[in-house]
Amino acid sequence: MDPIINAVLKPKSIAVIGASTNPDKIGYKVVENLKNCGYENPVYPINPDAEEILGYKCYPSILDVPYVIDLAVVTVPARVVPAVTRESGEKGVKGLSIITSGFSEVGDHALEDEVISIAREYGMRVIGPNIIGTLSNSDKMNASFTNFLPLDGKAALVSQSGALLIAMDAATYTRRVGFDKMISVGNMADLDFADLITYLNEDENTYCITLYIEGIDDGATFMEAARNCTKPIIALKAGTSAHGAAAAASHTGSLAGSAKVYEAAFGQVGITQAEDLNDMFDLTLALSLQPPMKGDNLLIVTNGGGVGVLATDAAEKYGLPLKFAPEDVQAELRKYMPSFGSAKNPVDITGGAGLKGYYEGVKYSYAHDWVDGMVVLYCETSVTDPQEIAEAIYNALQESGTNDKPVAVSFIGGERCEKAMQWLIEHDIPTYDAPDLAVKALAALRKQNEMLQTAQNAPYKPTGIDSEKARNIIAGARAKGRDALTEVEAKHVFAAYGLPVTPTDLAHNEEEAIRMAEEIGYPVVMKIVSPDILHKSDAGAVKVNIKNEQGVRDAWKVIMENSFAYKADAEIDGVAVQEMAPWATEVIVGSVNDATFGPTLMFGLGGIFVEVMKDVTFKVAPIDKSTAFDMQSEIKSAKILEGARGEAPRDQKALAEVLANYSYMIYDLKDEIAESDANPVIVYEEGKGVAVVDARIILTKK
Amino acid sequence: MDPIINAVLKPKSIAVIGASTNPDKIGYKVVENLKNCGYENPVYPINPDAEEILGYKCYPSILDVPYVIDLAVVTVPARVVPAVTRESGEKGVKGLSIITSGFSEVGDHALEDEVISIAREYGMRVIGPNIIGTLSNSDKMNASFTNFLPLDGKAALVSQSGALLIAMDAATYTRRVGFDKMISVGNMADLDFADLITYLNEDENTYCITLYIEGIDDGATFMEAARNCTKPIIALKAGTSAHGAAAAASHTGSLAGSAKVYEAAFGQVGITQAEDLNDMFDLTLALSLQPPMKGDNLLIVTNGGGVGVLATDAAEKYGLPLKFAPEDVQAELRKYMPSFGSAKNPVDITGGAGLKGYYEGVKYSYAHDWVDGMVVLYCETSVTDPQEIAEAIYNALQESGTNDKPVAVSFIGGERCEKAMQWLIEHDIPTYDAPDLAVKALAALRKQNEMLQTAQNAPYKPTGIDSEKARNIIAGARAKGRDALTEVEAKHVFAAYGLPVTPTDLAHNEEEAIRMAEEIGYPVVMKIVSPDILHKSDAGAVKVNIKNEQGVRDAWKVIMENSFAYKADAEIDGVAVQEMAPWATEVIVGSVNDATFGPTLMFGLGGIFVEVMKDVTFKVAPIDKSTAFDMQSEIKSAKILEGARGEAPRDQKALAEVLANYSYMIYDLKDEIAESDANPVIVYEEGKGVAVVDARIILTKK
Repeated sequence: MDPIINAVLKPKSIAVIGASTNPDKIGYKVVENLKNCGYENPVYPINPDAEEILGYKCYPSILDVPYVIDLAVVTVPARVVPAVTRESGEKGVKGLSIITSGFSEVGDHALEDEVISIAREYGMRVIGPNIIGTLSNSDKMNASFTNFLPLDGKAALVSQSGALLIAMDAATYTRRVGFDKMISVGNMADLDFADLITYLNEDENTYCITLYIEGIDDGATFMEAARNCTKPIIALKAGTSAHGAAAAASHTGSLAGSAKVYEAAFGQVGITQAEDLNDMFDLTLALSLQPPMKGDNLLIVTNGGGVGVLATDAAEKYGLPLKFAPEDVQAELRKYMPSFGSAKNPVDITGGAGLKGYYEGVKYSYAHDWVDGMVVLYCETSVTDPQEIAEAIYNALQESGTNDKPVAVSFIGGERCEKAMQWLIEHDIPTYDAPDLAVKALAALRKQNEMLQTAQNAPYKPTGIDSEKARNIIAGARAKGRDALTEVEAKHVFAAYGLPVTPTDLAHNEEEAIRMAEEIGYPVVMKIVSPDILHKSDAGAVKVNIKNEQGVRDAWKVIMENSFAYKADAEIDGVAVQEMAPWATEVIVGSVNDATFGPTLMFGLGGIFVEVMKDVTFKVAPIDKSTAFDMQSEIKSAKILEGARGEAPRDQKALAEVLANYSYMIYDLKDEIAESDANPVIVYEEGKGVAVVDARIILTKK
Repeated sequence: MDPIINAVLKPKSIAVIGASTNPDKIGYKVVENLKNCGYENPVYPINPDAEEILGYKCYPSILDVPYVIDLAVVTVPARVVPAVTRESGEKGVKGLSIITSGFSEVGDHALEDEVISIAREYGMRVIGPNIIGTLSNSDKMNASFTNFLPLDGKAALVSQSGALLIAMDAATYTRRVGFDKMISVGNMADLDFADLITYLNEDENTYCITLYIEGIDDGATFMEAARNCTKPIIALKAGTSAHGAAAAASHTGSLAGSAKVYEAAFGQVGITQAEDLNDMFDLTLALSLQPPMKGDNLLIVTNGGGVGVLATDAAEKYGLPLKFAPEDVQAELRKYMPSFGSAKNPVDITGGAGLKGYYEGVKYSYAHDWVDGMVVLYCETSVTDPQEIAEAIYNALQESGTNDKPVAVSFIGGERCEKAMQWLIEHDIPTYDAPDLAVKALAALRKQNEMLQTAQNAPYKPTGIDSEKARNIIAGARAKGRDALTEVEAKHVFAAYGLPVTPTDLAHNEEEAIRMAEEIGYPVVMKIVSPDILHKSDAGAVKVNIKNEQGVRDAWKVIMENSFAYKADAEIDGVAVQEMAPWATEVIVGSVNDATFGPTLMFGLGGIFVEVMKDVTFKVAPIDKSTAFDMQSEIKSAKILEGARGEAPRDQKALAEVLANYSYMIYDLKDEIAESDANPVIVYEEGKGVAVVDARIILTKK
């Protein structure tokens, strides 16, 4: 655990620079909140014009405080922040929490850079600027200007929106979702999501890390931190729509990356993405209170058929379809229900069922080996008391002799149900007001288990690559003032990274073309290579299925004629001669350099699938082969690769290698390749490989 | 309004048959609930052993009551129900509410049928059996065994699950969603969803009808009632998953139809389908309190950038993407916010914004012509009072001079926000605890407006059809003991309904085949027609692209040889000779006879789209041409029909006619056709029509 960051987040002493005697000022509120919320370590208000504030002795400058200071909370106007930062450095303060706004979020990057550069000079770390502050129940510390600590709990919130943090702080009490810490990160000029994930992963009071994200600058560091984190991470990413991203960009200082790439990155490092604000609270409740679900067998116990059916529907929707319980489980459960109940799954102990039905049913099922996780549902009735039911469920779980399986509960009813649900949450059982939410919670815990298994793959580096050759080809193109490679050059770069390009050579004259065609073997394809002719087919400068020498000669003539007819002064590099790959399943592999996450791989089936159905998937590069298989199975048209309509399965293993090598190529050459694609890539039957038929590389601006 | 049903649901007097003096019995609870909830009309407990119950004079039999009785609530054991039904009939009671269970839901259909048949004899209507009862705030009537009336409001709930109704009754108070009526329909032996939709559409206290559905018997009547209803209808359909449908079927007595067909039927008659229980409450709040949204321009006002972004994302997700407000609106709005606010959309009046910002901003925007609907968001802050903000929003709306546009609000915060939100709901403004829910509410109100526009199309009947010819062909096949038509027969049936089948005739010998080929015009396709050879291609009994007389002779020989090689004793009807349709975009049109909704049309693109992507859409037949266009645009691959990848648009008009005629065919022949498909159907360029190339009809069992 980084001792400096620990001193900033769990300070043993706090100075408030800009402490005020005016109760309307933030500089007063921070001191008041520290006091009222019970912070037990020393607080030093810094104010040259006051003797004391709320019983704390004031100092004119931080340099005048005769004690050690861990954290300085800064509330002075923006223009004064550099000066107080330097004073804090001189004083030996460990770090700053800069509440003050008026920095990069309003365009003043220079002032922000100045502050951070001073802080770095003294080895100080900074949270903010433009924040609400930091709150921690376990330290009884409210070093912020929002009035109270959140409902105590096991999660930590890191929020890029201050207004939302204040509102959520209040909302923890009505929603009964507890947090140990809430950290406002504002402009993230120094400490960012990555630093806080790394810190919170080692914090003993944090069981689950919840992030509200508007935009991240350094995607790679963020992913690295998340990948190394062993606690559940939940992220609500705002700005997923085009219009929303524009609003987010105007709201914070950072550029919002594309929603699809964020989604990919989250998935790759085991972050659970929340769909919306309620989902974020619901997931936090489940992931902070319950263990991951280690198998697929979900058992539902209910007293109402209707909610049982709704929960069953939800189980299918969220990827945990119910199976009937084994006969021994059913036989045992039938003992605790009337004859018109159902012991299958959902287990309907019926509306008349009381405490005994719930207690015995839950206790027996929860302990049974077949059951991997449970959802317990209760519909309020006039013959049962919700609180008693809640206690029966809790006692059954406690006395079952098991505690490593997840459970979620849903009560449907009125005021009495609300109170009983609150009691259950206080006893660490996530409880929701609708049956599908309890099921969704279990599905998230199931997914959490899967992510724990897969997120720790070692980075992939293919063997036998020739990075230098690729860089030489690129340097050659740049030397000619070009910002894109020709198809032949791009294929040679691909080949240097082990990609199976169809043999392609650049012929400078007819005789050379014939020699190449004979080397490659007929039939061949010939295409013009010219920086002036991008749409080769439109220009009539592509000839396929050339079968012999005479064919090459005829093609050469036609291609040249058509090219000059298309553009009389076209610069012609020559004619590409390439193997005519037999046709099979067409896929596309491509890349972009995402502003946040860097080189990012795209994969999909070719033609209409990519153009009309937009059936593509993304991964941040590099990926390993296992992730390359995931990409093939997560597109909607996955079944075509598996062998649909009576066709043999495609060579998914060879395709996985192509995807992994391609991802390594764009990662290795990220300073050179801005965009690229291999389109089409032909995937043959299992064992028969893959052929990259066309290649395109756009270079980065330098 | 049906006077008998009105007497059952708004009775001027109630007898409780099976009234009990034992407070644990349902027969006591119903009397107690009628009394406690304030029912002001006469109540007559029927109990041979008691003098009075809770101050109401008892009668030994309903026949002994000397006054007129509208409704008899029945709580006696199931075996006694036929007798009391007959007595009620003799007494001249208008209808029965049969709470008693033990009928079709446990398999005793005979007893249920007996009761209904007695009721019909006397012209009585029946709710139930197996119900909780009926509740109505406007009549202060709680004729049920759940203890209290729901929170008063403008919606009506009709629920097929009793347990869920009891739980929801209680939940109305905690969720603040008000209902005027709650009606438990149980087994729906007589009065069903259709009757209640028709009744509630004319009920002055109902503004929105909310249905909890497990299964419907008569889909056509249900659709008719919903189609004629001018009030919003919301349906939560339980049992959408395979496992869930099984659970639903065991829970109620009716068969759950396929989820896809329910979804289609709801869409066709303007029912908004709720995704889950919370969604049902959320939609009820919006649709019972606010008018439909007449245009696409949604304006969002917020004091927090973060929730503004979340709402913007939601707007895109729910199909109401935000546009920037016009410059005049922005200029005006800028007056009410600090310089760092944003007047675009979302309108961010910023966290410092107080009452004036909300009041002026909302009042001006709501009245502006450009705005079709509004979402107002508020994040709790330490400088604002949620209740004051709520009142400012309400007053702004009231004083805007406009009231025909929908508004929804979201407050994010704690206890104070909860209270303010409750106040807003009490003032008929739907208010939610997350920004996306407020946006989703507006999206539902927008959809409601669209459904009002389109749900009222007159039934479609194509001209020039020859129903008799089709029935004769079918009768001919049945006479031969077949349960399927041959391709040639099926095409003739299709042709009788105006479908453009490729000209196809059945040749009984070579010479006939040559004559037919010459009539049709070369090239032609020839295929064996035999009830013993279903997989014609596998048998080598299909020849395509036959160009002349010699080709026909060769094909005849090969087809016959291969057919007898395939099955030596095959019964051969002859050889189909058909036009060889040029290839273009391949689609599939098919039908099933759904257990609930009857003949149902399926449409999708052919090949991989239907087989791998499952990209198909359903409509209950018959449909009109406008709905036929909807089908073409609601598949995911719709763009292919519109002309993707530089191709000309397909003939969508001709295809719409095919779909409409096909739907009329399966509707008209629903007693004859069990399943059918036209696969493939070739769709040519705009203006060039459609060709049905292959046809299949499976007959109903008779």
